[in-house]
Amino acid sequence: MKRTSRDIRTANRYEVLRQIIAASPTSRQELAAATGLSLATIATLVGELLDLRMITEVGFEDSAGGRPRGLVAVNASGGALIGVDIAETYVHVELFDLGLNVLARAEEDVRPGESLPEQVVSHVTAAVGSVVTQAGVEGARVLGVGVSVPGQVDRATGTSEYAPNWDWHEVPLLDLLTEHIAYPLYLDNPLRASAVAELWFGAARGRGDAVVVNLGTGVGAGLILGSALHRGVSNSAGEWGHTTIVLDGRLCRCGKHGCVEAYVGASGIMLTLRELSPDSTLLHPEDQTATIAALARGVRANDPVALKVVRDTVRYLGTGIADLVNLFNPEVVVLSSWVATALGEPLVAEVREAVARHALPRPMAATEIVLSPIPTDPVCLGAATFALEGALQSVGQRNARPSTTNARSRTAPPS
Amino acid sequence: MKRTSRDIRTANRYEVLRQIIAASPTSRQELAAATGLSLATIATLVGELLDLRMITEVGFEDSAGGRPRGLVAVNASGGALIGVDIAETYVHVELFDLGLNVLARAEEDVRPGESLPEQVVSHVTAAVGSVVTQAGVEGARVLGVGVSVPGQVDRATGTSEYAPNWDWHEVPLLDLLTEHIAYPLYLDNPLRASAVAELWFGAARGRGDAVVVNLGTGVGAGLILGSALHRGVSNSAGEWGHTTIVLDGRLCRCGKHGCVEAYVGASGIMLTLRELSPDSTLLHPEDQTATIAALARGVRANDPVALKVVRDTVRYLGTGIADLVNLFNPEVVVLSSWVATALGEPLVAEVREAVARHALPRPMAATEIVLSPIPTDPVCLGAATFALEGALQSVGQRNARPSTTNARSRTAPPS
Repeated sequence: MKRTSRDIRTANRYEVLRQIIAASPTSRQELAAATGLSLATIATLVGELLDLRMITEVGFEDSAGGRPRGLVAVNASGGALIGVDIAETYVHVELFDLGLNVLARAEEDVRPGESLPEQVVSHVTAAVGSVVTQAGVEGARVLGVGVSVPGQVDRATGTSEYAPNWDWHEVPLLDLLTEHIAYPLYLDNPLRASAVAELWFGAARGRGDAVVVNLGTGVGAGLILGSALHRGVSNSAGEWGHTTIVLDGRLCRCGKHGCVEAYVGASGIMLTLRELSPDSTLLHPEDQTATIAALARGVRANDPVALKVVRDTVRYLGTGIADLVNLFNPEVVVLSSWVATALGEPLVAEVREAVARHALPRPMAATEIVLSPIPTDPVCLGAATFALEGALQSVGQRNARPSTTNARSRTAPPS
Repeated sequence: MKRTSRDIRTANRYEVLRQIIAASPTSRQELAAATGLSLATIATLVGELLDLRMITEVGFEDSAGGRPRGLVAVNASGGALIGVDIAETYVHVELFDLGLNVLARAEEDVRPGESLPEQVVSHVTAAVGSVVTQAGVEGARVLGVGVSVPGQVDRATGTSEYAPNWDWHEVPLLDLLTEHIAYPLYLDNPLRASAVAELWFGAARGRGDAVVVNLGTGVGAGLILGSALHRGVSNSAGEWGHTTIVLDGRLCRCGKHGCVEAYVGASGIMLTLRELSPDSTLLHPEDQTATIAALARGVRANDPVALKVVRDTVRYLGTGIADLVNLFNPEVVVLSSWVATALGEPLVAEVREAVARHALPRPMAATEIVLSPIPTDPVCLGAATFALEGALQSVGQRNARPSTTNARSRTAPPS
C-alpha cells in the first residue's frame, strides 16, 4: 500500500508504545533517542498514550546536571486485550494486560467434522467468555479482541475469504462473532499475527526487514519490511506456502502442483513419512500433532526413519527459505508455529546449512535464521497486538486535527 | 532497512519532485493535495528545490475567490544527469535534463572477451565524454552520473561484488571510474534502476506496491514496496532469478540448479530452443539478441518452433511471476528489459494467462500485468534518477538542522 503521512504517524505511535512496553519505566528523552523521533513528536505521542491511560507517569530520574526527567511506564492494568488463534484443530484464546502479559488462557478442540462456521464461532465465544471470567476483568476494560483465522481474510469487511482446510468461502466471521461478543473485533490471519508478534516482542524487534516463516498445517511467510508489516494491496502478501519449488510436483491442497506447503506443511511431512515407510510406528494417520511429536522424539533418539524424513523435509524447506533470502534480503528469518516448535533447534541447525547451500552469498551473509523466541502462542500474542493497534488507531482518529490544506483533488482521510 | 524520520523526509522530497516533474507547472496547494503532505512541509521542500535551482517560480494562477497561487515548474536547464547502463553486451549512456528528457545518447559494444574491468571502464568513460560533448553541457552543470552494473553491488563502497556473466568479484568500479570521470558517481544494479524508473516515470507511479520483472541476459525483480524501493539489508533484495522453481532442474550460471533464470533468461530461452530444434534457423549460437529477435519474428509469423519455445518459456515465467504475486500481493507487475521488449505484447498476453492459472485468486484479482511503458532505456533513466536522488540527498544533508534531543544512546545521523 502507498504510505501516507498518517501511516507514518500511526507507525510512530506503535513504535513509541513498543519502546515503553520493552523498557518501562523510561523517559521522553530515552524514547527520542531510541526511536530517532524529535522530542516534540515524542511529547505529543506520550500525551496521547497518557490520555488513553495506556501508560502512566511514574516519577522522575536525575539527569546529569539537568532537570529531573519525568518517567512513564505501561499502565498494565489500564485495559485488557484478547488474542484468538483459530487453527485447524483447536481454538486457543489468551487474555493479556497492556504489558502483553498473559492473565488467562482457554483452549477448545476443533474435531474433524466440527468445522462449520457456527461451530467454530461457538468455540471462540466460549473461550473468550472463559478468559474474561478467569481474569476477573470488567467487560468495559477489554479494549479489543484480535482474531486470527487461517487462509485469506478481508480485514475491512471481517470476512474469511478462503480457508483451504475447511473449504470456507466468504464466511462473514466478524458478523457471526459480533452476535456473541460485545468487544471491538479485529480479523487477520496467523501469518500476519505471528509476524506482528515477532516485530513487537520477538526476534524482529528493532529490525528493519524480517521474514517470519510459519510452519504448521499451513505454511506461509509474515513479512516485516521497513519495520512494518507488509500486507500487500489486498492483505494477502506472504503466501510463500503456495510458491512453486517443484514444477509439476506434488498436488497441494490449493489445487496447484509443487507448492512449498505440499512438502513442508504438516500433511506434506506426513506424506513424506508414508512414502518412505508406510508402516512406520511414527505415523498417526489422522493426527498431525501426534505424528510430528513422534518424529521429534525419533530425531532425538536417532531413529533412521525420523532422521531421513526431517532431512528430506529440510531439503525442500532450505530451498524455499533460500528463495525468501534471495528475494527479501532480510536481517533475520524467524521459524515459528507448532511444527517448528516441535522439531526445534535440530531442525533449525539443518535448515541453516540447507539455506546456505542454496542462497546467494551476499544476502546469506546478512541473514540470521532463528527459532521464534516467543515462549507463548505467538498467534494469540499477535492477534492481541492487532487489538492494541486498533485501540491506538482509534485514539489517533479521535485526536486527528482537520487538514490545513485547501485541497481540490484530495481523497485521503484527514490527517 | 529500518525506516527513520530522515528516510521519510528524503522520501517526501522525492515525492514532491516526482509530482512537479509529472505536472509542471503546479502550485504548492496542488502538491499538498497530491502527496497528502501538509502545506508547511510542502513549502519547506519546495524552498529547498528552489534554492537548488532544480525548480523555478513560473507565475501565478487564480484560485476561486482566494489569493493567486504561486506556480513552480521543473527548471529543465538547471542541471544535467547522466545514466549509464552497463550490460553484458553493451554500454549505453544517456544524458538528461532535470525533467528527465534525453538530450544525448551514446552506445559502445562490449564484445565477448572484452569484459575486463579496465575495458568496461574505458567504454563508460568514452560514452560519458561523448554525451557531454553532444549535449554541449558545461561540466559544472552535471549533477551526477548513475551507473548500473549487473549482479550484486555494494553502493556504499562503489564495489561490484559479483557480476556472474563476467565472473567479476569485488571490483572497485567507482574507484576505477573516478580516475576518469569528475562528476559525482552513484553505483547500483539494473533491477533497482529499472524499478526506480517505473516508480518515478512508469507503471509504478503513484502505486504503493509494484514488482518490476527484468527479462534480459540476467533476470530479477525490482521491488517497490510502500512507494519506495526495497533494497533489503545489504542492497541485494530482488534476486528472483535465483529462486528455485524446478528442484534439481537445469544448472544455472550461479552454480545452483532449477533457478528461474536458467529457464527464462536469454540463455535459458536459447537452450530451450536448442533442445527443441537443434538445427533451427532461429538459433544464432553466439548471439542472444539476434536469437531473441528471430524468435519474436517467428511468433509474429506463427512459426511453430518459435511459438513452442515461447509457450515453454511462459510456463516457467508464469509460475515464477505467480510466486511473486503470491508473495508480494502487488498492484502491478511490470515486465521490463530487452527480452520483454523484443517479445512484446504477445508474451505479456500469454504470461497473464499463465500467472492466472498459478497464482491464488485473491492476490491475482488485485494485480495488473503490463509491459513497461517507458519508451527509452529504463536502466539509463533509473540510473540517472539515482543521480537525481543523490543530488537531492546532499541538499537534505546540507540543510539538516542539528538534533534538538539530548540523546545518550543515539547512533542515528543527525536529522
